Amino acid sequence: MPLSKFSVPPDQRFFEDYEAGGVYELGSIAVSEAEIVDFARRFDPQYFHVDHEQASSGPFAGIIASGWHTVGLAMRLFVDQFLSHVASLASPGADEIRWPNPVRPGDTLSVGVTVLDTRPSQSKPDRGIVRSKVEAVNQRQEIVLSMMLVSFLARRHAG
Amino acid sequence: MPLSKFSVPPDQRFFEDYEAGGVYELGSIAVSEAEIVDFARRFDPQYFHVDHEQASSGPFAGIIASGWHTVGLAMRLFVDQFLSHVASLASPGADEIRWPNPVRPGDTLSVGVTVLDTRPSQSKPDRGIVRSKVEAVNQRQEIVLSMMLVSFLARRHAG
Repeated sequence: MPLSKFSVPPDQRFFEDYEAGGVYELGSIAVSEAEIVDFARRFDPQYFHVDHEQASSGPFAGIIASGWHTVGLAMRLFVDQFLSHVASLASPGADEIRWPNPVRPGDTLSVGVTVLDTRPSQSKPDRGIVRSKVEAVNQRQEIVLSMMLVSFLARRHAG
Repeated sequence: MPLSKFSVPPDQRFFEDYEAGGVYELGSIAVSEAEIVDFARRFDPQYFHVDHEQASSGPFAGIIASGWHTVGLAMRLFVDQFLSHVASLASPGADEIRWPNPVRPGDTLSVGVTVLDTRPSQSKPDRGIVRSKVEAVNQRQEIVLSMMLVSFLARRHAG
Protein backbone atom coordinates (compact mmCIF):
# COMPACT_ATOMS: atom_id res chain seq x y z
CA MET A 1 0.00 0.00 0.00
CA PRO A 2 1.32 3.49 -0.78
CA LEU A 3 1.95 5.45 2.40
CA SER A 4 0.33 8.77 3.15
CA LYS A 5 2.04 11.78 4.70
CA PHE A 6 0.53 14.46 6.91
CA SER A 7 1.20 18.03 5.77
CA VAL A 8 1.70 19.19 9.38
CA PRO A 9 3.25 17.64 12.53
CA PRO A 10 1.06 16.30 15.38
CA ASP A 11 1.09 19.63 17.26
CA GLN A 12 -0.58 21.37 14.32
CA ARG A 13 -3.07 18.70 13.28
CA PHE A 14 -6.84 19.17 13.41
CA PHE A 15 -9.82 17.12 12.25
CA GLU A 16 -9.38 18.37 8.68
CA ASP A 17 -5.92 16.79 8.41
CA TYR A 18 -7.32 13.25 8.62
CA GLU A 19 -8.61 11.75 5.36
CA ALA A 20 -10.33 8.42 4.73
CA GLY A 21 -7.96 5.96 3.10
CA GLY A 22 -4.82 7.50 4.58
CA VAL A 23 -2.26 4.82 5.52
CA TYR A 24 0.56 5.58 7.98
CA GLU A 25 3.47 3.68 9.47
CA LEU A 26 4.01 4.64 13.08
CA GLY A 27 7.33 2.95 13.82
CA SER A 28 8.34 -0.12 15.76
CA ILE A 29 8.95 -1.15 19.33
CA ALA A 30 10.80 -4.01 21.02
CA VAL A 31 9.13 -5.98 23.83
CA SER A 32 11.15 -7.41 26.72
CA GLU A 33 10.14 -10.15 29.15
CA ALA A 34 10.63 -7.74 32.06
CA GLU A 35 8.12 -5.29 30.58
CA ILE A 36 5.65 -8.09 29.81
CA VAL A 37 5.80 -9.39 33.38
CA ASP A 38 5.67 -5.89 34.91
CA PHE A 39 2.54 -4.92 32.98
CA ALA A 40 0.80 -8.23 33.63
CA ARG A 41 1.54 -8.25 37.37
CA ARG A 42 -0.44 -5.03 37.63
CA PHE A 43 -3.27 -5.62 35.20
CA ASP A 44 -3.50 -9.19 33.92
CA PRO A 45 -1.66 -11.64 36.23
CA GLN A 46 -2.50 -14.86 34.42
CA TYR A 47 0.34 -17.35 34.84
CA PHE A 48 1.29 -17.40 31.15
CA HIS A 49 1.93 -13.65 31.39
CA VAL A 50 3.87 -13.54 34.68
CA ASP A 51 5.43 -16.91 35.58
CA HIS A 52 8.30 -18.01 33.34
CA GLU A 53 8.45 -21.57 34.63
CA GLN A 54 4.72 -22.32 34.75
CA ALA A 55 4.25 -20.64 31.36
CA SER A 56 6.79 -22.93 29.74
CA SER A 57 4.50 -25.91 30.29
CA GLY A 58 1.37 -23.89 29.51
CA PRO A 59 -0.69 -23.46 26.33
CA PHE A 60 1.86 -21.15 24.65
CA ALA A 61 5.05 -22.98 25.74
CA GLY A 62 6.40 -19.77 27.23
CA ILE A 63 5.46 -16.32 28.44
CA ILE A 64 3.29 -14.17 26.17
CA ALA A 65 2.28 -10.55 26.60
CA SER A 66 -1.14 -9.57 27.89
CA GLY A 67 -3.20 -8.49 24.91
CA TRP A 68 -3.85 -5.24 26.78
CA HIS A 69 -0.12 -4.64 26.98
CA THR A 70 0.08 -4.99 23.20
CA VAL A 71 -2.78 -2.50 22.92
CA GLY A 72 -0.85 -0.08 25.17
CA LEU A 73 2.33 -0.37 23.11
CA ALA A 74 0.44 0.32 19.88
CA MET A 75 -1.49 3.14 21.54
CA ARG A 76 1.77 4.84 22.52
CA LEU A 77 2.86 5.07 18.87
CA PHE A 78 -0.66 6.10 17.81
CA VAL A 79 -0.58 8.99 20.32
CA ASP A 80 2.99 10.05 19.57
CA GLN A 81 2.93 9.84 15.77
CA PHE A 82 -0.65 9.96 14.47
CA LEU A 83 -3.06 11.65 16.85
CA SER A 84 -3.13 15.43 17.11
CA HIS A 85 -1.32 16.73 20.19
CA VAL A 86 -3.55 19.82 20.35
CA ALA A 87 -6.96 18.86 18.93
CA SER A 88 -7.63 15.45 20.49
CA LEU A 89 -10.81 15.42 22.58
CA ALA A 90 -10.40 11.80 23.71
CA SER A 91 -12.28 8.74 22.54
CA PRO A 92 -15.75 7.30 23.11
CA GLY A 93 -14.64 3.74 22.46
CA ALA A 94 -12.90 1.02 20.49
CA ASP A 95 -14.16 -2.03 18.62
CA GLU A 96 -13.07 -5.32 17.11
CA ILE A 97 -9.93 -5.83 19.14
CA ARG A 98 -8.25 -9.02 17.93
CA TRP A 99 -5.09 -10.81 19.05
CA PRO A 100 -4.59 -13.45 16.32
CA ASN A 101 -1.02 -14.33 17.33
CA PRO A 102 0.83 -14.11 20.66
CA VAL A 103 3.52 -11.53 21.46
CA ARG A 104 6.62 -13.12 22.99
CA PRO A 105 9.65 -11.66 24.80
CA GLY A 106 12.15 -10.31 22.29
CA ASP A 107 9.56 -9.62 19.59
CA THR A 108 9.69 -6.34 17.69
CA LEU A 109 6.30 -4.95 16.74
CA SER A 110 5.66 -2.58 13.84
CA VAL A 111 2.49 -0.51 14.03
CA GLY A 112 0.45 0.95 11.20
CA VAL A 113 -2.84 2.80 10.95
CA THR A 114 -5.44 3.25 8.22
CA VAL A 115 -8.05 6.01 8.41
CA LEU A 116 -11.39 4.27 7.79
CA ASP A 117 -13.66 7.31 7.67
CA THR A 118 -14.10 10.84 9.01
CA ARG A 119 -17.19 12.96 9.57
CA PRO A 120 -18.13 16.20 11.29
CA SER A 121 -20.07 15.72 14.52
CA GLN A 122 -23.78 16.31 14.06
CA SER A 123 -24.38 17.40 17.64
CA LYS A 124 -21.17 19.38 18.32
CA PRO A 125 -20.04 21.69 15.49
CA ASP A 126 -16.59 22.25 17.06
CA ARG A 127 -15.39 18.71 16.34
CA GLY A 128 -15.26 15.75 13.99
CA ILE A 129 -15.03 11.99 14.39
CA VAL A 130 -12.21 9.87 12.93
CA ARG A 131 -12.34 6.07 12.82
CA SER A 132 -9.00 4.33 12.39
CA LYS A 133 -7.86 0.74 12.09
CA VAL A 134 -4.63 0.07 13.95
CA GLU A 135 -2.56 -3.04 13.21
CA ALA A 136 0.61 -4.39 14.78
CA VAL A 137 2.77 -7.10 13.21
CA ASN A 138 5.79 -8.90 14.62
CA GLN A 139 9.20 -9.39 12.98
CA ARG A 140 7.74 -12.28 10.94
CA GLN A 141 4.92 -10.06 9.64
CA GLU A 142 2.35 -12.01 11.65
CA ILE A 143 -0.51 -9.82 12.85
CA VAL A 144 -0.50 -9.70 16.66
CA LEU A 145 -3.12 -6.96 17.11
CA SER A 146 -5.82 -5.24 15.14
CA MET A 147 -8.34 -2.78 16.54
CA MET A 148 -10.67 -0.02 15.48
CA LEU A 149 -10.31 3.26 17.38
CA VAL A 150 -12.72 6.19 17.39
CA SER A 151 -11.24 9.66 18.00
CA PHE A 152 -12.90 13.02 18.59
CA LEU A 153 -10.84 15.87 17.10
CA ALA A 154 -11.38 19.63 17.21
CA ARG A 155 -11.94 21.38 13.89
CA ARG A 156 -9.28 23.91 12.85
CA HIS A 157 -11.51 26.97 12.92
CA ALA A 158 -13.82 25.83 15.70
CA GLY A 159 -13.42 28.99 17.70
CA MET B 1 -30.20 -8.04 39.58
CA PRO B 2 -29.74 -11.12 41.79
CA LEU B 3 -26.08 -12.06 42.08
CA SER B 4 -24.74 -15.45 41.10
CA LYS B 5 -22.17 -17.46 43.01
CA PHE B 6 -19.59 -19.88 41.67
CA SER B 7 -19.59 -23.29 43.36
CA VAL B 8 -15.77 -23.44 43.26
CA PRO B 9 -12.95 -20.88 43.65
CA PRO B 10 -10.98 -19.57 40.62
CA ASP B 11 -8.28 -22.24 40.95
CA GLN B 12 -10.87 -25.00 40.45
CA ARG B 13 -13.01 -23.44 37.73
CA PHE B 14 -13.39 -24.87 34.24
CA PHE B 15 -15.53 -24.02 31.22
CA GLU B 16 -18.50 -25.87 32.73
CA ASP B 17 -18.61 -23.49 35.73
CA TYR B 18 -19.63 -20.51 33.57
CA GLU B 19 -23.33 -20.20 32.78
CA ALA B 20 -25.12 -17.71 30.55
CA GLY B 21 -26.95 -15.11 32.63
CA GLY B 22 -24.61 -15.35 35.59
CA VAL B 23 -24.00 -11.93 37.21
CA TYR B 24 -21.01 -11.34 39.50
CA GLU B 25 -19.62 -8.41 41.48
CA LEU B 26 -15.84 -8.37 41.35
CA GLY B 27 -15.06 -5.70 43.94
CA SER B 28 -13.90 -2.11 43.79
CA ILE B 29 -10.69 -0.21 43.29
CA ALA B 30 -9.55 3.36 44.03
CA VAL B 31 -7.73 5.36 41.36
CA SER B 32 -5.05 7.91 42.28
CA GLU B 33 -3.67 10.74 40.15
CA ALA B 34 -0.16 9.28 40.47
CA GLU B 35 -1.32 5.96 38.98
CA ILE B 36 -3.23 7.71 36.19
CA VAL B 37 -0.18 9.77 35.21
CA ASP B 38 2.19 6.81 35.50
CA PHE B 39 0.11 4.61 33.22
CA ALA B 40 -0.47 7.37 30.68
CA ARG B 41 3.19 8.41 30.50
CA ARG B 42 3.98 4.92 29.30
CA PHE B 43 1.05 4.15 27.05
CA ASP B 44 -1.16 7.16 26.32
CA PRO B 45 0.66 10.47 26.99
CA GLN B 46 -2.09 12.85 25.91
CA TYR B 47 -1.90 16.05 27.95
CA PHE B 48 -5.24 15.52 29.67
CA HIS B 49 -3.89 12.24 31.07
CA VAL B 50 -0.41 13.41 32.16
CA ASP B 51 -0.22 17.21 32.68
CA HIS B 52 -2.16 18.52 35.68
CA GLU B 53 -1.90 22.19 34.71
CA GLN B 54 -2.61 21.90 31.00
CA ALA B 55 -5.42 19.44 31.71
CA SER B 56 -7.18 21.93 33.99
CA SER B 57 -7.87 24.21 31.01
CA GLY B 58 -8.57 21.26 28.69
CA PRO B 59 -11.80 19.59 27.58
CA PHE B 60 -12.33 17.75 30.89
CA ALA B 61 -11.26 20.59 33.26
CA GLY B 62 -8.74 18.28 34.91
CA ILE B 63 -6.82 15.07 34.50
CA ILE B 64 -8.74 11.96 33.46
CA ALA B 65 -7.50 8.38 33.21
CA SER B 66 -6.60 6.83 29.88
CA GLY B 67 -9.47 4.59 28.85
CA TRP B 68 -6.91 1.78 28.53
CA HIS B 69 -5.93 2.27 32.16
CA THR B 70 -9.57 1.82 33.14
CA VAL B 71 -9.63 -1.36 31.05
CA GLY B 72 -6.52 -2.59 32.89
CA LEU B 73 -8.02 -1.91 36.32
CA ALA B 74 -11.21 -3.79 35.43
CA MET B 75 -9.18 -6.60 33.84
CA ARG B 76 -7.25 -7.08 37.08
CA LEU B 77 -10.45 -7.79 39.01
CA PHE B 78 -11.76 -9.96 36.15
CA VAL B 79 -8.59 -12.09 36.29
CA ASP B 80 -8.40 -12.27 40.08
CA GLN B 81 -12.07 -12.93 40.85
CA PHE B 82 -13.85 -14.31 37.80
CA LEU B 83 -11.55 -16.03 35.33
CA SER B 84 -10.28 -19.52 36.04
CA HIS B 85 -6.69 -19.56 37.33
CA VAL B 86 -6.09 -23.02 35.89
CA ALA B 87 -8.27 -23.38 32.77
CA SER B 88 -7.84 -20.01 31.01
CA LEU B 89 -6.40 -20.41 27.51
CA ALA B 90 -6.26 -16.65 26.82
CA SER B 91 -8.51 -14.56 24.63
CA PRO B 92 -8.94 -14.04 20.90
CA GLY B 93 -10.34 -10.53 21.31
CA ALA B 94 -12.67 -7.96 22.80
CA ASP B 95 -15.50 -5.87 21.37
CA GLU B 96 -17.65 -2.84 22.02
CA ILE B 97 -15.32 -1.05 24.43
CA ARG B 98 -17.07 2.13 25.57
CA TRP B 99 -15.97 4.92 27.92
CA PRO B 100 -19.19 6.91 28.43
CA ASN B 101 -17.88 8.95 31.38
CA PRO B 102 -14.35 9.99 32.41
CA VAL B 103 -12.44 8.49 35.36
CA ARG B 104 -10.90 11.17 37.58
CA PRO B 105 -8.28 11.04 40.35
CA GLY B 106 -9.87 9.90 43.60
CA ASP B 107 -12.66 7.95 41.92
CA THR B 108 -13.54 4.50 43.21
CA LEU B 109 -14.63 2.05 40.54
CA SER B 110 -16.84 -0.99 41.13
CA VAL B 111 -16.62 -3.74 38.56
CA GLY B 112 -19.25 -6.31 37.61
CA VAL B 113 -19.52 -9.00 34.96
CA THR B 114 -22.41 -10.74 33.24
CA VAL B 115 -21.93 -13.99 31.32
CA LEU B 116 -23.56 -13.43 27.92
CA ASP B 117 -23.21 -16.91 26.48
CA THR B 118 -21.05 -20.03 26.53
CA ARG B 119 -20.47 -22.74 23.95
CA PRO B 120 -18.10 -25.65 23.38
CA SER B 121 -15.50 -25.00 20.68
CA GLN B 122 -16.40 -26.69 17.38
CA SER B 123 -12.80 -27.05 16.24
CA LYS B 124 -11.09 -27.89 19.56
CA PRO B 125 -12.94 -30.37 21.80
CA ASP B 126 -10.72 -29.60 24.82
CA ARG B 127 -12.17 -26.11 25.35
CA GLY B 128 -15.17 -23.83 25.38
CA ILE B 129 -15.81 -20.16 24.66
CA VAL B 130 -17.30 -17.75 27.20
CA ARG B 131 -18.45 -14.25 26.24
CA SER B 132 -18.78 -11.80 29.13
CA LYS B 133 -19.85 -8.19 29.49
CA VAL B 134 -17.73 -6.26 31.97
CA GLU B 135 -18.94 -2.95 33.40
CA ALA B 136 -17.28 -0.47 35.74
CA VAL B 137 -19.16 2.31 37.54
CA ASN B 138 -17.81 5.15 39.68
CA GLN B 139 -18.93 6.17 43.18
CA ARG B 140 -21.90 8.03 41.62
CA GLN B 141 -22.99 4.88 39.75
CA GLU B 142 -22.04 6.44 36.42
CA ILE B 143 -20.79 3.88 33.91
CA VAL B 144 -17.15 4.60 33.07
CA LEU B 145 -16.43 1.43 31.09
CA SER B 146 -18.28 -1.35 29.37
CA MET B 147 -16.70 -4.04 27.21
CA MET B 148 -17.32 -7.50 25.86
CA LEU B 149 -14.57 -10.05 26.49
CA VAL B 150 -14.16 -13.45 24.86
CA SER B 151 -12.38 -16.15 26.88
CA PHE B 152 -11.19 -19.62 25.92
CA LEU B 153 -11.46 -22.04 28.85
CA ALA B 154 -10.42 -25.68 29.14
CA ARG B 155 -13.18 -28.22 29.78
CA ARG B 156 -13.01 -30.09 33.08
CA HIS B 157 -12.51 -33.54 31.64
CA ALA B 158 -10.54 -32.53 28.56
CA GLY B 159 -7.81 -35.01 29.26
